[in-house]
Amino acid sequence: MDTLMYAILAMGVVGLLYTIWRSMWISKQDVGTDKMAKISKYIADGAIAFLRAEYKVLIVFVAAVAVILGLTNRAPESSPLIAVSFILGAFSSALAGYIGMRVATKANVRTTNAARKSLSDALVVAFNGGSVMGLAVVGLGIVGLSLLLIIYSNLFGTEGDALTKVISVITGFSFGASSIALFARVGGGIYTKAADVGADLVGKVEAGIPEDHPLNPATIADNVGDNVGDVAGMGADLFESYVGSMVGAMVLGAAFAAEPSYLDNFGKLGPVLLPLMLGGVGILTSILGTFFVRVKEGGDPQKALNMGEFISAIVMVIASYFLIQWLLPASWTFNGITYTAVNVFWSTIIGLAAGVFIGLITEYYTGFGKRPVRFIAQQSLTGPATNIISGISVGMMSTVLPVLIIAVAIIAAYELAGLYGIAIAAVGMLSNTGIQLAVDAYGPIADNAGGIAEMAELPSEVRDRTDRLDAVGNTTAAIGKGFAIGSAALTALALFSAYMAVTDMKAIDISKPSVMAGLFIGGMMPFLFSSMAMRAVGRAAQSMIEEVRRQFSSIPQLKRALEAMRRNEGKSFEQWSSEDQKAFAEAEGKAEYARCVEISTTSAIKEMVLPGVVAVLTPVVIGYLGGTEMLGGLLAGVTISGVLMALFQANAGGAWDNAKKMIEAGFEYAGKLYKKGSEPHKAAVVGDTVGDPFKDTSGPSLNILLKLMSVIALVMAPVLPKKGLIFSDNAAASKAPVVKEEKAATAMHTPSQAIRWEDASRR
Amino acid sequence: MDTLMYAILAMGVVGLLYTIWRSMWISKQDVGTDKMAKISKYIADGAIAFLRAEYKVLIVFVAAVAVILGLTNRAPESSPLIAVSFILGAFSSALAGYIGMRVATKANVRTTNAARKSLSDALVVAFNGGSVMGLAVVGLGIVGLSLLLIIYSNLFGTEGDALTKVISVITGFSFGASSIALFARVGGGIYTKAADVGADLVGKVEAGIPEDHPLNPATIADNVGDNVGDVAGMGADLFESYVGSMVGAMVLGAAFAAEPSYLDNFGKLGPVLLPLMLGGVGILTSILGTFFVRVKEGGDPQKALNMGEFISAIVMVIASYFLIQWLLPASWTFNGITYTAVNVFWSTIIGLAAGVFIGLITEYYTGFGKRPVRFIAQQSLTGPATNIISGISVGMMSTVLPVLIIAVAIIAAYELAGLYGIAIAAVGMLSNTGIQLAVDAYGPIADNAGGIAEMAELPSEVRDRTDRLDAVGNTTAAIGKGFAIGSAALTALALFSAYMAVTDMKAIDISKPSVMAGLFIGGMMPFLFSSMAMRAVGRAAQSMIEEVRRQFSSIPQLKRALEAMRRNEGKSFEQWSSEDQKAFAEAEGKAEYARCVEISTTSAIKEMVLPGVVAVLTPVVIGYLGGTEMLGGLLAGVTISGVLMALFQANAGGAWDNAKKMIEAGFEYAGKLYKKGSEPHKAAVVGDTVGDPFKDTSGPSLNILLKLMSVIALVMAPVLPKKGLIFSDNAAASKAPVVKEEKAATAMHTPSQAIRWEDASRR
Repeated sequence: MDTLMYAILAMGVVGLLYTIWRSMWISKQDVGTDKMAKISKYIADGAIAFLRAEYKVLIVFVAAVAVILGLTNRAPESSPLIAVSFILGAFSSALAGYIGMRVATKANVRTTNAARKSLSDALVVAFNGGSVMGLAVVGLGIVGLSLLLIIYSNLFGTEGDALTKVISVITGFSFGASSIALFARVGGGIYTKAADVGADLVGKVEAGIPEDHPLNPATIADNVGDNVGDVAGMGADLFESYVGSMVGAMVLGAAFAAEPSYLDNFGKLGPVLLPLMLGGVGILTSILGTFFVRVKEGGDPQKALNMGEFISAIVMVIASYFLIQWLLPASWTFNGITYTAVNVFWSTIIGLAAGVFIGLITEYYTGFGKRPVRFIAQQSLTGPATNIISGISVGMMSTVLPVLIIAVAIIAAYELAGLYGIAIAAVGMLSNTGIQLAVDAYGPIADNAGGIAEMAELPSEVRDRTDRLDAVGNTTAAIGKGFAIGSAALTALALFSAYMAVTDMKAIDISKPSVMAGLFIGGMMPFLFSSMAMRAVGRAAQSMIEEVRRQFSSIPQLKRALEAMRRNEGKSFEQWSSEDQKAFAEAEGKAEYARCVEISTTSAIKEMVLPGVVAVLTPVVIGYLGGTEMLGGLLAGVTISGVLMALFQANAGGAWDNAKKMIEAGFEYAGKLYKKGSEPHKAAVVGDTVGDPFKDTSGPSLNILLKLMSVIALVMAPVLPKKGLIFSDNAAASKAPVVKEEKAATAMHTPSQAIRWEDASRR
Repeated sequence: MDTLMYAILAMGVVGLLYTIWRSMWISKQDVGTDKMAKISKYIADGAIAFLRAEYKVLIVFVAAVAVILGLTNRAPESSPLIAVSFILGAFSSALAGYIGMRVATKANVRTTNAARKSLSDALVVAFNGGSVMGLAVVGLGIVGLSLLLIIYSNLFGTEGDALTKVISVITGFSFGASSIALFARVGGGIYTKAADVGADLVGKVEAGIPEDHPLNPATIADNVGDNVGDVAGMGADLFESYVGSMVGAMVLGAAFAAEPSYLDNFGKLGPVLLPLMLGGVGILTSILGTFFVRVKEGGDPQKALNMGEFISAIVMVIASYFLIQWLLPASWTFNGITYTAVNVFWSTIIGLAAGVFIGLITEYYTGFGKRPVRFIAQQSLTGPATNIISGISVGMMSTVLPVLIIAVAIIAAYELAGLYGIAIAAVGMLSNTGIQLAVDAYGPIADNAGGIAEMAELPSEVRDRTDRLDAVGNTTAAIGKGFAIGSAALTALALFSAYMAVTDMKAIDISKPSVMAGLFIGGMMPFLFSSMAMRAVGRAAQSMIEEVRRQFSSIPQLKRALEAMRRNEGKSFEQWSSEDQKAFAEAEGKAEYARCVEISTTSAIKEMVLPGVVAVLTPVVIGYLGGTEMLGGLLAGVTISGVLMALFQANAGGAWDNAKKMIEAGFEYAGKLYKKGSEPHKAAVVGDTVGDPFKDTSGPSLNILLKLMSVIALVMAPVLPKKGLIFSDNAAASKAPVVKEEKAATAMHTPSQAIRWEDASRR
């Protein structure tokens, strides 16, 4: 059994070795021309500068929370060591972000350089860059969790109450991961959109220079933003889901230990080790998958990525079946309920299927050329208002099927294997995170590569190749976002179930006003959070706009070059007068990129604090004021409203983006062709701009919000008061009513009682 | 005790007599010039045509549902007579809408005519018109409910189980009211926005003619829309809240009858009669208030309206105190919990206060010149995208305080007087509906009066006076919308509690996946519903746009008049060439208003069916498939998400509207003045257009959605299966677990058990 823990640890280490190997391979690739190297260095330095500034703030936060955790967890069923778990979780999340971004900012320029040779070479570099992020996330997750399990189980043992204590102390790891994730997502989201809006609004619209043009001072910040938002942010998001789903399943698995006699193969540790084992094997299948991502010149990069994911998924499904049969007994009875290994296996399949379906639905609602996007493009013909209304309407409609899928998945997983089934479904959905995230992170690398090609003024066939890679990246990004939301929902539910188990609550009863109030307040949080995030983007973008305008008007070389460009609009550079050519050449390197990077960094860091603090404090305040049950209501409210708002915002944003791209590619309606620069295009640009903070800042932050709140509740669970401070014992309604016992038995027919947590831990 | 029932009926009749008296007074007022009479007739005919078409469809629906209700309610605790209650409820709602609209379309032109004399006269006519709607709603509500109570209690008696049966059969009245309300709100909302968008987009933007200009074929439809949407729709909405809150309180009040010995004054009927009595006295105080709405020329119409509402509210509060002391014993114990009359009184005050606060917050977030609206106006300077983002952000932020108020109100009311306290809080909030609705309905009348002044080409001082009345109407409309949402929330919760009581559920446990799935699906419904409503508006508006374009291009006189207008832009009519003057004169009466009215009517009726059917069928399907507890989850989900989305949409829409108006009035920022026609104004018009379906179609429909679903659940409750069809008895998770009894007792500490409904009704 100890062997098994070490085997899991070893698989995690394999993941990390893979990332080292791939990183070294990428470093060895050629960076191309001096100009490319210089641009790439700007981006890499900007990205690292942001991470440094961010981590400086977070160290204070992590230290403060660690001290609080250490001081408040002195009860026998917990331990101050939870602070260590927390710090390790925060550190792992930060490290995963750091590694991913470091490699992504190396891979981008090398992808550009490879694209000078062939599409195939470029795909390999970009995907390998993404795979470092992917495997770093899963590797660090598995190494961290298994290491803590080994240490704590040696320290406290795994007999009797001890196992519960071990897992309870490990939950801190998930909390650490969540905290960093929230700040990374919010900060990164604000950074990327502030830079993007600044670059677009003043550069493209006011000054009329193309995207990613070296004269635009915000262009480096814009490319840095893609890395800190899409690479590091998405990585932290999935790291959190990955770790959270496992911790949830481990807590629920440990509950079976109350009746260990039913578990034979690996004793009571089987259900606890299963999620880690699935994760560990998922690392191996992910690595296997990466070897199948290959494309020939003229081939379809999408197919290559699909092949990698497909092979990895198939092998994972087969492996899961045998793993589950091996780790769990064929059937066992617990609290009068019979569980079977086969049903647990089917739960993982349900999770995996739900993830895939939600991804595909996301693709339908946001995909280039698909009906909903065509509808928005068509509505752009009557102006920006109808474009906006149709986008909002598509976004809202896109929530329907994913929610039904989630509803069916949780009911089905539960019918198969109780709450443990739901948690294992989440694990199943996330077992392939390694390659899934590799594909996600590939997108922004390809995007950056295109930006570098533009800034370095490389021949157009290079940009064409990176554009082909980027187009694929957009689809994968949409699917990845859907997947991230689906996994956030299931993970939050797994954590929620774990919270129920730890607080020893038998029911969270909506008909209690405190719970209903909790639901209301929880449901409102995503609205508050989104509103704060959008305003933060607005303020940050405003500073950026002012800085770019300042540079354009106060740096004489830039001013002259812009005038020259305007004079020669539509002409190729060779046709310019020699004077204008000179003015243009003199402007090179005069744009003060660093100032823009600094502004993005400062505003993002400043703006991420308030939403972050609100997110962390709300469950603490509600927990103490309203008690465990009201907090349960809060969690349910934030989960439901958060999933809906995340789907709505991500999909509306994605659909607006592609509607704009459809018109740019030439959109025909009623016999007329509309193109870039037409009135419908302008209307579509409005939609795209509205969608930007939706899909890249507020929407994705909600994923983290709901997981973070659940994990905070789980961590606080052992020390929370049952009854909140605001509920006096003398109030009319809080007196114990007379209940007939046979009714109590009916009413108590809830799944949570299936787990007699208290029996195991409070004896 | 019987006397009391007749006294309530009498107060309802007083309300109806008041409406007749006021209607007659309005009919006697002068309609003004022939042209005014003609225009007014167009509007009145259009409105009645719409109602006829709508009611024709609804008769089929009502008949079908009545048959189903009659056939399925044969169990001893119910009765097929519920079908009669349903038909009466539907009929009353329809009648209230009909009366309100009939009088509103008479009052509008008479307000215009009165405005030719003085502001004071115009205010009196407009407000009296509104008061007919207000008193019709409350009068019909009280008459209907008290009549049914008298009939059924004579039929079944009120001893033992009979009282429960009486109230249960009365719930059909609320269901009838809700069904009509949904179709009226959705149909009216689609109508008004289709006409509005058609009139604006082709008339104002494409052809460049002013709003409400007689050359615009859609202008009559636009004015009809104000009546069917804002008058009839709002009336049906509040009628539903009014009736729903009372029915909820009556159901919960009847539960006390299980231990009748505790209630002395009026025996067990006290708590049942209290809500009706509060409503009846509210009619008298509302009538009293109407006499204080007076203004002198040059005075402030806002103050006049406030005075009426204020006096009515103060008298109502004092009266409530004595009523409650009279109808309820000073204190009584039920199921081990002590209730006091004073605490019930405080619950009504909490409801009233919550309504007022939510209204004031709404006013802050949407009010002309207030900070959030100024922020949107300022964000319009950087274009439509930032206008939209800021509006969305303001709308989301505006949900925070109202939700906290609702949360505090339900907890406080519950701590004071249990679930009955929550229901009574809803009644307290709505006891002044008579005058509240009078003020709400005054707005569209004043708006219409302005439109008629424009179309009839009256002197500008008339329009100025109606504009002053209209400006006040906008503020009251915003407050009224906030109030409608707040009351919908509390009413839904009252109905929800009643549902719990009738189904004999002890808890609705979120930790059950079926309940969680119900919450998810319920939470998604407002997104689905809003999306459908927005698309319906889009399609209906498209037909209208095409029709207006067709008329402009195919009616030669219209075409020539438009050309003449374009040639003479900026000149006064006297400066036009005589030929142009002739062309303009020849166009009079050539616009085919009736065609546009017909198109709006047809599309609205067609488009209201699908959302309506979805709303009605969802609770039925979930109830049968998932059982009573999953349906409870669905209700909670739709209530929370519905309240949030309704607040968000209504307030974002209102804020966009006033941001546009602020710029039109001249908006100064950073030393520059922006006016009508400037770029920021165009950006603000985009926001206003997006906000239109938000605030007038999808947003308000959500109020009804959540009440309707709750009332359907309540009506179905006696015949629903406890366990849904999809949950097999053999599944692992559904087996009864072993629970220790002392734990069951703790977990069962829920308010719902306080009401031993079963004891009273199932014995």
